[in-house]
Amino acid sequence: MMSTNDPILYARQQKERYLAELVDFLRIPSISTQPERRTETAVAAQWLADAMKTAGLENVELIPTQRHPLIYADWLHAPDAPTVLIYGHYDVQPAEPLALWDSPPFEPTVRDNYLYARGASDDKGQIYIHVKAVEAILESNGRLPINVKFIIEGEEESGGESLAAFIPQNKAKLAADVALISDTAMVNAQQPAIVYGLRGMCYAYIDITGPSRDLHSGSFGGGVNNPLNVLCHIIANLKDEDGRILIPGFYDGIRPLSDSEREILAQFPLDEAAWLAETGAPQPWGDPDYTLVERLGARPTLDVHGIIGGYTGSGAKTVLPSKVHAKISMRLVPDQEPDEIGRLLKTAVAKLTPPSVHVQVTMEHGAPASITDLEIPAMKAAAKAYTAAFSKAPVFMREGGSIPVVSEFQTELGLETVLMGFGLPGDQIHAPNERFYLPNYYRGIETSIHFLQNLAA
Amino acid sequence: MMSTNDPILYARQQKERYLAELVDFLRIPSISTQPERRTETAVAAQWLADAMKTAGLENVELIPTQRHPLIYADWLHAPDAPTVLIYGHYDVQPAEPLALWDSPPFEPTVRDNYLYARGASDDKGQIYIHVKAVEAILESNGRLPINVKFIIEGEEESGGESLAAFIPQNKAKLAADVALISDTAMVNAQQPAIVYGLRGMCYAYIDITGPSRDLHSGSFGGGVNNPLNVLCHIIANLKDEDGRILIPGFYDGIRPLSDSEREILAQFPLDEAAWLAETGAPQPWGDPDYTLVERLGARPTLDVHGIIGGYTGSGAKTVLPSKVHAKISMRLVPDQEPDEIGRLLKTAVAKLTPPSVHVQVTMEHGAPASITDLEIPAMKAAAKAYTAAFSKAPVFMREGGSIPVVSEFQTELGLETVLMGFGLPGDQIHAPNERFYLPNYYRGIETSIHFLQNLAA
Repeated sequence: MMSTNDPILYARQQKERYLAELVDFLRIPSISTQPERRTETAVAAQWLADAMKTAGLENVELIPTQRHPLIYADWLHAPDAPTVLIYGHYDVQPAEPLALWDSPPFEPTVRDNYLYARGASDDKGQIYIHVKAVEAILESNGRLPINVKFIIEGEEESGGESLAAFIPQNKAKLAADVALISDTAMVNAQQPAIVYGLRGMCYAYIDITGPSRDLHSGSFGGGVNNPLNVLCHIIANLKDEDGRILIPGFYDGIRPLSDSEREILAQFPLDEAAWLAETGAPQPWGDPDYTLVERLGARPTLDVHGIIGGYTGSGAKTVLPSKVHAKISMRLVPDQEPDEIGRLLKTAVAKLTPPSVHVQVTMEHGAPASITDLEIPAMKAAAKAYTAAFSKAPVFMREGGSIPVVSEFQTELGLETVLMGFGLPGDQIHAPNERFYLPNYYRGIETSIHFLQNLAA
Repeated sequence: MMSTNDPILYARQQKERYLAELVDFLRIPSISTQPERRTETAVAAQWLADAMKTAGLENVELIPTQRHPLIYADWLHAPDAPTVLIYGHYDVQPAEPLALWDSPPFEPTVRDNYLYARGASDDKGQIYIHVKAVEAILESNGRLPINVKFIIEGEEESGGESLAAFIPQNKAKLAADVALISDTAMVNAQQPAIVYGLRGMCYAYIDITGPSRDLHSGSFGGGVNNPLNVLCHIIANLKDEDGRILIPGFYDGIRPLSDSEREILAQFPLDEAAWLAETGAPQPWGDPDYTLVERLGARPTLDVHGIIGGYTGSGAKTVLPSKVHAKISMRLVPDQEPDEIGRLLKTAVAKLTPPSVHVQVTMEHGAPASITDLEIPAMKAAAKAYTAAFSKAPVFMREGGSIPVVSEFQTELGLETVLMGFGLPGDQIHAPNERFYLPNYYRGIETSIHFLQNLAA
């Protein structure tokens, strides 16, 4: 093997430059949710587009939107090989509270093999891995073994509306065989993980109105139903104490966990004691028919996220509130359909509502769960790539949260997504002292190179 | 009968002066809860003390306290006759929002037989009735047929701590045979009412802690119990949908409603349609084993007054809250004991609490219910007095709220209280455009004269 055309060896020689470039990228405070950072967010988009051009990508395009630009780029000169669509985001979370950072969030600093900066792990470091992997292959071989398309957004931390609107309008432009996203975490520095399932979401508001104005509970208590008591009654009857959801029909559409999938999830190395310590809760909890790992990723939930009602100042007050409000969400699993779940919720709440109050249930948003077939070539290519770069086979996991773009890729483009994460659980994303483990940055670039090569085979 | 020694005729001749004096009293903005009104509140106390002296009361004393002075006065020259302790308050509610008043709150104005001013009905107008009744008898007869003591406070609208501390320290000074309070309302201008029962109170906070910090429901939902869901579960299991309280032992101490008392309550002329319209609720509600009048005054309640927990801003957020808080009260009836009810609540909540969260129940305050024997001479004297002054026998009612001083009189002084109200339901107490129906002011003075005379008989 000639070292000059081995992209792995090439990448290993470029570590210093790769780090310097990422540091440059991280200096730009591209906080998409803050209007006063609009210019910096645009600067970050331009910086990444330029870096993609330099890496050898073609048709690099900044696509204006209502808010922050999208970046498109491709390399499409492998007519018989598959095409991979790589997604990431160049925007970052706000850095506040600034006082809690040990080094300034936009002055990237290396300490103990970690690069500290806002966006280091989420997601600038992870998306830049793939730009550098493409560059390493092009520099070494003059061509890629497969076709790639990049679609990068600048609103992942603030709604993602622009990309959500763009995808259905640009199906041909984004057409591919599989999608690749690096925006998740490994189990630990030694143990890579591939997320193959994400839960979906049905978020709803419950509004209850009783009397037309707040009443005094001394004068009216016992004769007027109290909307706060009714709300508690309704919520208590949507889920039992073990977490089984009581909405009729809720479980009907769920694809059962197969024995083989339960075996895969059983292999996930969750340290339950460490997990419990992280939560600070007195005990783990949930449906006793499923393991904790299954409950956290592969089973649906129903949680109340906020209740607004009555007197919320300090001390005692004896009001019968006129109006109360609750925010609830159900995390969904395949193949639950968010709109159908919303309808079932409305029906269940209506049945639980006494005629002495009015109730309104409003769907806030929904997204289906997503799951990637473990048998597709891209999953095998990803597993092999991790094994090569980390000397350790990845575990497969289902994550409890949602990445809306994954279901948009599935629904609009018919794409399965490989979620190849290089973050670590301690990366402090969305918090002060966000960091990225530098060995993962370099091994990530090697993993990406292997993945693109494996996909061609 | 000589007109010169008939206090009723005397009082009828003094209407103009009685109105002018009340207007003077109402001009003083004695808002006890506002520190910037401390001087005015003291001025009102002095004004009333002077007026009591002028009326012929003796031993008039302004008693300093930590906050606003108490006023004591007496006339004790009827050694073989009973003694009545008359209570009232000279402080008033804040007047805000000022823009909603049709005439300024401290510029008393007569329109359509109503005197509009803050405090007109609650309670300056009602307490002044008894001062003028005493004066009318003394002016006409030179002596009272019974003994009277007045104890007037200036903190009724802001806690009442000073009087609550004074009573147990001054049992001999306040010793009497019966207490009289005018701080309630009649059914309507034609129908007087005597309140003979008041509910008590057990107010408690429920605090639930789950995880040690707010968690993301995507990552932890299904594995960590949600304190808001637990709170709803607990509250839903404290009371059924019809309002029957499910706390074991809760009803054990209740004195059953006798058939004769149910007959008395059945005579109360509640216009259910008008009542419902006033609440704005879709339907009346409550324990089907009791009538609406019984449920509003003679049966206990359990109401949630406020819940604080989770995300309460606008929009969706998916938090598993660490800590949630609820304020609940139980209105009590004779002979429920507030501390015992608090203990039963704690036990019930503990039984409903899963090991996956911590719960704390804290008693905020308690007060026993009170009830006045309808057969005592003072009740008969009051009924006869109303009949004479209003040409209509009063109805007897139990009120749903609490007047803490009534249970303090009962507990500390062993006194039954006659609640002889001259307000009307439309008096807008605690609201803009508070008013007092002037015919009730004059008839109230006559009722009080009759009452004091009847009590001697």
